[in-house]
Formats: sequence, structure tokens, C-alpha cells
Amino acid sequence: MLEVHHFDIDIGQNKVMLNQEDARRMGLNAGDRVRVRAKGAAITALLDTTKQMVNVGQLGLFTEAYAELRSPKEADVMPAPRPASLYYIKSIMDGKKLSEEQIRNIVQDIVDNNLSDVELSAYVTASYIHNLDAEQTEWLTKAMIATGDRIHFDTHPVMDKHSIGGVPGNKVSLLVVPIVAAAGLLIPKTSSRAITGAGGTADLMEILAPVEFTADEIKEITESVGGVIAWGGATNIAPADDKLIRAEYALSVDPYSQMLASIMAKKGAVGADAVVIDMPVGPGTKLPTTESGRILAKDLIDLGQRLGIRVEAAMTFGGSPVGRTVGPALEIKEALTVLENKGGPNSLREKSLALAGILLEMGGIVGRGDGPNAAEQILTSGKALAKLKQIIEAQGGDPKVSSDDIQVGQYYEDILSPTAGYIVAFYNKRIVEIARLAGAPADKTAGVIITKKMGESVKAGEPLMTIYSSCEWDLQSAVKDAKRSVPIVVEGMLLERYPRVMEI
Amino acid sequence: MLEVHHFDIDIGQNKVMLNQEDARRMGLNAGDRVRVRAKGAAITALLDTTKQMVNVGQLGLFTEAYAELRSPKEADVMPAPRPASLYYIKSIMDGKKLSEEQIRNIVQDIVDNNLSDVELSAYVTASYIHNLDAEQTEWLTKAMIATGDRIHFDTHPVMDKHSIGGVPGNKVSLLVVPIVAAAGLLIPKTSSRAITGAGGTADLMEILAPVEFTADEIKEITESVGGVIAWGGATNIAPADDKLIRAEYALSVDPYSQMLASIMAKKGAVGADAVVIDMPVGPGTKLPTTESGRILAKDLIDLGQRLGIRVEAAMTFGGSPVGRTVGPALEIKEALTVLENKGGPNSLREKSLALAGILLEMGGIVGRGDGPNAAEQILTSGKALAKLKQIIEAQGGDPKVSSDDIQVGQYYEDILSPTAGYIVAFYNKRIVEIARLAGAPADKTAGVIITKKMGESVKAGEPLMTIYSSCEWDLQSAVKDAKRSVPIVVEGMLLERYPRVMEI
Repeated sequence: MLEVHHFDIDIGQNKVMLNQEDARRMGLNAGDRVRVRAKGAAITALLDTTKQMVNVGQLGLFTEAYAELRSPKEADVMPAPRPASLYYIKSIMDGKKLSEEQIRNIVQDIVDNNLSDVELSAYVTASYIHNLDAEQTEWLTKAMIATGDRIHFDTHPVMDKHSIGGVPGNKVSLLVVPIVAAAGLLIPKTSSRAITGAGGTADLMEILAPVEFTADEIKEITESVGGVIAWGGATNIAPADDKLIRAEYALSVDPYSQMLASIMAKKGAVGADAVVIDMPVGPGTKLPTTESGRILAKDLIDLGQRLGIRVEAAMTFGGSPVGRTVGPALEIKEALTVLENKGGPNSLREKSLALAGILLEMGGIVGRGDGPNAAEQILTSGKALAKLKQIIEAQGGDPKVSSDDIQVGQYYEDILSPTAGYIVAFYNKRIVEIARLAGAPADKTAGVIITKKMGESVKAGEPLMTIYSSCEWDLQSAVKDAKRSVPIVVEGMLLERYPRVMEI
Repeated sequence: MLEVHHFDIDIGQNKVMLNQEDARRMGLNAGDRVRVRAKGAAITALLDTTKQMVNVGQLGLFTEAYAELRSPKEADVMPAPRPASLYYIKSIMDGKKLSEEQIRNIVQDIVDNNLSDVELSAYVTASYIHNLDAEQTEWLTKAMIATGDRIHFDTHPVMDKHSIGGVPGNKVSLLVVPIVAAAGLLIPKTSSRAITGAGGTADLMEILAPVEFTADEIKEITESVGGVIAWGGATNIAPADDKLIRAEYALSVDPYSQMLASIMAKKGAVGADAVVIDMPVGPGTKLPTTESGRILAKDLIDLGQRLGIRVEAAMTFGGSPVGRTVGPALEIKEALTVLENKGGPNSLREKSLALAGILLEMGGIVGRGDGPNAAEQILTSGKALAKLKQIIEAQGGDPKVSSDDIQVGQYYEDILSPTAGYIVAFYNKRIVEIARLAGAPADKTAGVIITKKMGESVKAGEPLMTIYSSCEWDLQSAVKDAKRSVPIVVEGMLLERYPRVMEI
């Protein structure tokens, strides 16, 4: 028996640590699996070895393993076989085709935190290099659905919407969901928070109402008011995705078949019958050309067919932000302004009506081609706003909110055009960076209002954008970056001057 | 400023932990790099995030980071760029060719522990799938040499030997090194310990003398007595290899170009002019066919040319153990018996003379074709034994040791043949497993003497092998496994009986 040494470190999986001498004596190496037995309990755990963190004769137990073994004083260790999923990951490396059972096995081990970082990364890297074929992607999607919570609605059809992302200010779900729900369709929308962006739909909605719900609560809210805008990360829907994102983020990769599966698994798990995919195309987005967009659209439609989900893809222009705001509060204010029919940018209104229109057609509310008009009618009549307020109330927020109530950053500064001319270049990523420096998405009041977009004309001294923040220091840091990075370029503007870089 | 929370966990790299809320507020995610500043010190570290291990306003510092920052009470965190090597690893994933500078950069970050497990695994996985070409492998090898200690000898030529591994009982270095050194050549041999085997050359030599030396000490011993048999893992020679082995072991992969580079980097770093590569070929080895052996030989010779190292490869039969012993003490006893000219198995003697002969020819001691005879003369004359004793003494061991002094396991048991006939199948891996169950390599006295090898005849009741251990319980576990796994198969022997599996 080994004396237990408890490391109070919560590492998200069953991990134990042996002194290298003991490991050697037992023929074990770091990365092996071991069976650990203590009085009345046993677990399989990942082994790490150390020269000094635990002594010979000791077994280090991290928080999870220590808890599962019921805080033992001593424990025994035996070699255990590696998970079968490791052999299947090796098969992906070797470019072999996996069976449905093998893919299911990998996904289950990912969800159960049975793989080490080294192993998880090998899966992500191998599936980035060797894309899975359509059949394997179907199996992967089904496995991702099966290993999490699912929603089964009694009423059909169930609609859903997804955006591939990559364009800032894309607050269209705030309009699409209420329009579709107001038409009598169900739309249980789960959204993400920003990882590298200035605000995901969940970050935005959170200004209006709580967004953290279980799958059951999402079902309940959707059945009561027709729609929901929840944070997917709070649910246990397709949980493999969240585990994979960690490794994908660390490696800055987004394996293609994994991306397809992650999108469709979330839709399949909430029981969607029909889905519209918003695909922003253009410089700086994930889809540089319409050709790459068409391939993705076809693959998503094919995968949908395999899963029994109707998919339509809508390529939209992603070269500029949607609307004129980037940052949670500014975006919500803009979305409410459109819903209140008090104006707001045409790009946001048109894009939202187009996407909602497709869903109205797919849902059988109107015939093909009549969707946008029907959506516009729902918007103009105020029904969409009334529906959003019902959704806000159902999620626990204040339904009496209006665009005027939304607080934006108390500190703000204009970035002025140094010269007159047309906007000849516009860099989305730099706008996002400025909004993040100003504090978004954690500072919900921080962000950017874009006064001039691509092709518009500007006079010397007119603002190109206004930056907002609740923190003066963050504002200055964002302003400094805006002056240095020049996200909005006016024709004839001096960009740099040598030998000294000019601050516009 | 954040309040420092010290985690006394030695994780081998600079790692810090933020509460997820703080990370979010700073726009940081797990896997990002951060610059951490405390009073008078600053480091770049890998960021992990947690919901509960550290509170909002706290910064968790693991042992290394805590020490490097001089045990601070508070510290500041700023985002830092990711290491450039990550982009180069991504290039390997994308099948792009790297520059020498980029490869060097990856290797340096591996050696400096600047990569997370996720990142290191991506490198191993990507280089397993997309092999580097010959030029990149050359750069990789040079980078592995340059990022560690090197030995520069004044006397030349410097000889070396390497075995690809995969065959049990391969104690030939114990004979080759003294024969070559006795001929007046320098041979600074670094060896490995067993990872999944029953004993590496370093595990064997350690019975006779200490094996842990620095590069400088290896140089000194080699210059004084002509040869050394040291444990490479104790040196800082080509240290990238040890870091990579962790991920390779966890994934059970051995990327081809990485294998070439690891072999040749160790030889290049000790200043070898000429190297013989022992390549065991056959079922159960790393080289199933002579054709795969020829490709490897050609690639090693090519890589050697690029590095200015002459390489000859010797394909040897790897289907059975070399000699008749597996396990450190048993193997040393057998090697000494041959050196003492007291007999010993022909397979060990012949293979050692063949490899030593190649080195004598490459070193210019004798003409082409005369190596084996010259080697035999050195062995038969007792000069090889005398030289090994000098080496043992130079390494700090007892030069008066003889084969009779070597203690083997006090508990032993014969595995008897249940029937008469010829040996028709022989499973190396099962033999190794039995030796490991008996306690090898940590229990140096544990192992197996093989009485009957492939093609030999046996009578009913004669021993097929004898298992040794210093622990009665381990012996019984090994015996049980030997009876169950049937590593040595006699023609006509009943292997299994249904419905019950038969224990021979």
C-alpha cells in the first residue's frame, strides 16, 4: 500500500502521481493508465511521475481522484490498459477510416475527461490533417449528440440558426429569434460567448436577461414563449465541443470535419428540424471566397440530410461589421433600436430579415420567396419586439427594457479622420482588437460605434468611430491602438512616415 | 496587482493560473502566454484558468514560476505573444516545409519547456503524419545537437554504435565497446534505460559501475581508457529527445524523421566520426522486413553524410533474443562469460564480433573484410575483458568483477515443455513481458534464461526457460504469465482447450 499525498489541485480529470523510482519498480511510465484501489473504492487514472513531488512509497492524488476514492489515507496502484480510443486516434493519424463504434468511443472518452492533453491534442491535430469523410463526420456528429443532453419537442417544426462567425457586430440572432418565434415557430437558440471576439450572442443577451439554463429549462422556455437565447456553454448539450475547443484554441486550428460536426451536433441535440446557417464571406472572415463558402454550404447540407435536418446556408458579406456597433451594450442598443422601429442601420435590418425570412419559408409559414416580406411585417408591426420581451421575461429579465435604457461606457472618444476622402480599407480584426482593449466583452459597456464604413465619404476632422469604455485607462489604451493600427483607412491618408511611424 | 497563491507542484515549466473571471476580464484564455511581473523579476508563462482553484484577484503560481519570480506576495499579469514555434508547428500540420531557423526555434522551445503538452503533442503528431524531408531532418538533427552539450575530442577517429532496438537480450554493447577501445579507437557510448523493455544497456552496465556522467566526464573517461558505457539520460546531450519521448510514449508513435534525427543527434553531439547501426529485423521488431531495414539504412547513411558522419548499418536477425538471457544481471553474466572466453552463446558472440569488426574497419584498424577476425582476436586474447575492466574502473566500479560474482534472482522456476518436438514459434514480446513481471529492469536480478530457441528440439519435461526474481511473489506472477501466454511453442503442443483455457 502507498501512503496518499493529497494535491488540492482541480485538474478536471483523474490523475495520480508516483515517484519515478516507484514507477520504475512497477514498470510504469508517465502517460500510462493505472487502476487505483483504496478502501471500498477504485478508479482508473492517468499516471504522472515525479522526482520530488511525492516520495518513494507515496501516491499523489489530485482533487478529483482524491474525492472519488473518498479521501483515502492509503491506496494501491496496478497497471491498467490504455483506453481503446487511443488506438483509434492512432488510426486517424495513419489515415485509416474508423467505424461508428470507434468514433463514439473517442467522443465518449473526450466527454468523460479520460484523455490526457497529449492525447486530446493528437486527436485534434490528426483530424485537422486527415479530414474525416462524410460518413465518419455523420458518426462523429451523432456521437457528439448522444454523449450529451438532448431536447425532444412535442411540437414541430423546430427551427434553429447558426453563424459560422468571423464578422464583428453580428447581433442578428437578437432579431431573428423573436421574428421566427412571433411567427409561431419554435426556435431554441443556444449561443456562444466571445473567445477571441468582442461579444458573442450570449454575452449580448446577458444584458437583457440571464442566459444560463439547463437543457430542460431551454425546452420549457421555448415551449412557453416560442424561443430562447441561451448560452450553450452552460448546458450539457454536445459537451465534447467545449473540451475540444480548449485544444483547438491552443493550436489555433479548427479541423474542418470537427467544425461541421460541432455545428450540427448542437442543432441535432436541441431537436432542430430546419436550420439556417449564416456564412459571412470576405476578407478577414473564415471564408475568404464565395467558392469556399459554397463547399462549406454543401457539406453542411449533406450532413444535415444524413441527420434528418434540413439546412439552408446564406452567404452574407463579412468584410464589414454587421450594423455599426461592436461590443455587448452598444450592439444590444442597436438591435433594440431596429426592433423598436426607431431606425438603426440597414445592414443589420436587412440581414436579419433575410435570415428570418429563410426560416419562415423553411418552417412553412410562407411560400418560397415570401420570407423576407413576412419577416419585415413581423418586425414593423412590433410583434418581434413584443416577442423578444416575452423571451426576456421568460428568461428572468425585465421585459420593460428599451433601447434608451441600455447603459454604454461613460468614457468615450472619437477617432477623427485626418483627411477628406472615401473609406478605401476597413479591417474587422483591428476593430475587434480595439473593442477588446476598451474592455469588451467582460466590460459590457465597452465597444466601438463605427461612423464610417467601406466606401463612405468622410470630411477632414469628422469622426471615423467612437470608442466607449467604463474605464478611462482602458479607453486610452484602445484609443492609442486605434491611432496606431488604422482600422479604417481614408483614401489619401498618410499611413506611416519614415523614419518615424506616425500616429495618424 | 494580484495576490499570489503558491501551488507547490513541480510541473517542469512556467505555468500560472487565473480565475476564469479575471482571465475573461483580461481577454485571456487557457493556453495563452502571459508576462508575469513581480517585484524585481519577470517571466513569460503558460496560462491555465480555473473556476475555483484560485479566487478572483489571485494568481496561482506553480513551483517553477514561483521560484523564478523569487517567491513574490503579489504579481501583475499582461498578455504575451505566443511563441513563434507554434506557427511553425502549424506549418508542419499544413505540410509546409520549414526553414532551418524555424526548426531550430521549435527544438529550442522544446528544450526550454516553453511548449504545453497540447503543443508538444501537435508537433509529434504532425511530424508523425508529415515526415520531414532529408534537408529538414538534417536541420532538425543539427538543432538537437546545438541545443545540448557537445563533446569535442582532440584524437580521432571517434567511433560509436547504436541499436534501433526491438530485440530482447541485446547486450552486445558490453562486448563491442571494449573490443573497439582495446583496438585503440575512442568509443564514447551513451545508452538508454529500458522504457518498455526488460533492460537497456545502461541498466545492464549499472550492475558493474555507475553510469550517470556529464558530457565532460564522458569525454574524460573516454580519453583516459578509450571507451565509456554511460546513461545518455543523465547527460545534457541532445536533450530535446527526452522531452519528445514523453509525448511519443503516450501516443505510442515514433515519427520516422524524428527517430532518424534523435539517433544521429546523439552521435553527432559526442563528436562521432563513424557509426555502426545495429538494425534487428524480423517479426516483433521495429523492422518487420529487410526491405524496411534497407530504407532506414539508406536514410541513416544519407543523414550521416549531411552531418559529416560515416554510417554503416548492419541488419541482424531480431526474431529471437540475442544470446539466451533477458534481464540485467543475467545479461551481464552472459556478456562477461563470453568476454572471459568461458563459453556463452554463439549468437551473442558472433553478433558482437560482426558489429565490432565493422567499427575496426571503419576506424582504419584493419582492411575491409578483416574486421571480424581482428575483433575475435581481441576477444580471444583477453584484451577485450581487460579493457572492460579498465572502463569499469574509470567509471568508478570494481574491476575485479567476474561472471561468477554476478548475483541473479534467488527465486527461480523452470517452465517445462509439456511435449517433445521442435520449437516452432517464439514470441519476443512475451518473453520481455515475463521478465518485466519478474521485476526487470528495476529488480536487476530478475529475468529469463531461454533454454530452447526457435528450431531447437526439446524433450517432454525439459525446461524451455527459467525465470528468476528476487521476489517470490513477482516470480509466481511471471510464471503464471509464462504458462498462460506460451512464448515458446513446441510443435504438437496443445495451446488451448475449450471450453476452458488450458494452462499448458
